[in-house]
Amino acid sequence: MQAQTFSDDRLSCDAFLGGRLRLFQPRQGYRSGIDPVLLAASVPARAGESVLDLGCGAGAALLCLGSRVAGLQLWGAELQPGYAALADRNAALNGLEAQIVTADLNALPAPLSQMQFTHVIANPPFFDPARRTSASDPGRETGLAEGSPLADWVAIAARRTAPGGTVTMIQSAERLPDLAAGMIAHLGSVQLWPLAPRAGRDPRLILVRGRKAGRGVFRLHAPLILHEGDQHLGDVESYVPLIRTVLRDGADLPFPR
Amino acid sequence: MQAQTFSDDRLSCDAFLGGRLRLFQPRQGYRSGIDPVLLAASVPARAGESVLDLGCGAGAALLCLGSRVAGLQLWGAELQPGYAALADRNAALNGLEAQIVTADLNALPAPLSQMQFTHVIANPPFFDPARRTSASDPGRETGLAEGSPLADWVAIAARRTAPGGTVTMIQSAERLPDLAAGMIAHLGSVQLWPLAPRAGRDPRLILVRGRKAGRGVFRLHAPLILHEGDQHLGDVESYVPLIRTVLRDGADLPFPR
Repeated sequence: MQAQTFSDDRLSCDAFLGGRLRLFQPRQGYRSGIDPVLLAASVPARAGESVLDLGCGAGAALLCLGSRVAGLQLWGAELQPGYAALADRNAALNGLEAQIVTADLNALPAPLSQMQFTHVIANPPFFDPARRTSASDPGRETGLAEGSPLADWVAIAARRTAPGGTVTMIQSAERLPDLAAGMIAHLGSVQLWPLAPRAGRDPRLILVRGRKAGRGVFRLHAPLILHEGDQHLGDVESYVPLIRTVLRDGADLPFPR
Repeated sequence: MQAQTFSDDRLSCDAFLGGRLRLFQPRQGYRSGIDPVLLAASVPARAGESVLDLGCGAGAALLCLGSRVAGLQLWGAELQPGYAALADRNAALNGLEAQIVTADLNALPAPLSQMQFTHVIANPPFFDPARRTSASDPGRETGLAEGSPLADWVAIAARRTAPGGTVTMIQSAERLPDLAAGMIAHLGSVQLWPLAPRAGRDPRLILVRGRKAGRGVFRLHAPLILHEGDQHLGDVESYVPLIRTVLRDGADLPFPR
């Protein structure tokens, strides 16, 4: 099982948002890439609103959002105590206030179980455990392979969202059917925004948003292209300008209207 | 209710595939656009194989496919007798042999109920009846608004497909969640191919294919762009070359590999 806490020699301290945010992460274990940064950038949160990150890990998405938008009430729920402790530590490291609760999303304790948030976000584990072999690191495994079905993540997120509020998730494109079906079962005005590595390539990630009590029809958007050009050019950073400003300058990434 | 048959003065005779195919269609009622042509072009059918078109209407998709690929066994099931009679007539008009059965897809009669096909295709009604007002023409209404939920269409299509065979459907992008969820519930190796009117625009249509007993993961493809340029240029035909050859020359439109 995952150690309760990580000793410092097992951690790296990594820069996000061009150094605006620094996060301790386990050297071996679940490490955040661009997914939580893109997720956080897409949330239409404004000062004074509340945000819950379900399965917040070491806090990447929640703290990216808190760094971009001042004055949010930040809450995170994380199953693994070691990662929850890291999220606490990372909030303090960046001068942000966040309430991190160690909990299984299927059994959220009070006060979380009585609260509703303006925005709920999640970067649920990408892989269907039925389809893959386990990662050697158990913490990484829990971050990658789901304990709860994706439909549960959406249902629980929707329950914790205030009417008119949003649920936003980022996922592997492989999980589109489960995620889209869960979203329309529990939310309205669902928008699906595929993220493609390059123009003309198959999207590998999807951003999905629904609104609690929303009445709009489902909308599929044109893919957001992440990289310029037709192929990967070695070590040269090739993000399109919009994505570069999101990743390096903490810009927002609003869903298409 | 829909008249049992259409008198000739209520019909138009329309050219498809650059005139290779001619179809009688009701002047008032459900009239085929490019959707059944694209659907038929995407089916990987080969001589000697069998095809069932569920809800075949006046036969546009089935006969486009029969026109493109010689030597198929063509079957169609259509709820509305007037349209089923037109499909029969349209097959004969184009020198194609097709077995058209007037039937509710939820109660397919023998021998259909005992058969399995290499390929099943459908262009199910696009609109969720809960969300729209009725068309004034009852035949058009039945063609546009579903009697059966989309999940039933997929389940019935999957049952009528032989192991290793394909189910291909075209739908409004608004129905993506229902269609994708139905596909992965009953089929494997599901591929979703959005069709966008122009580059950068939101896709309005989706082609979805699954394989009976397929073991591949779900795949989301880059959108297929239908028109060149950024905007509609009046009466000028602006299809991209691939789509033009599909619509005018009867070319095939294979799913991305």
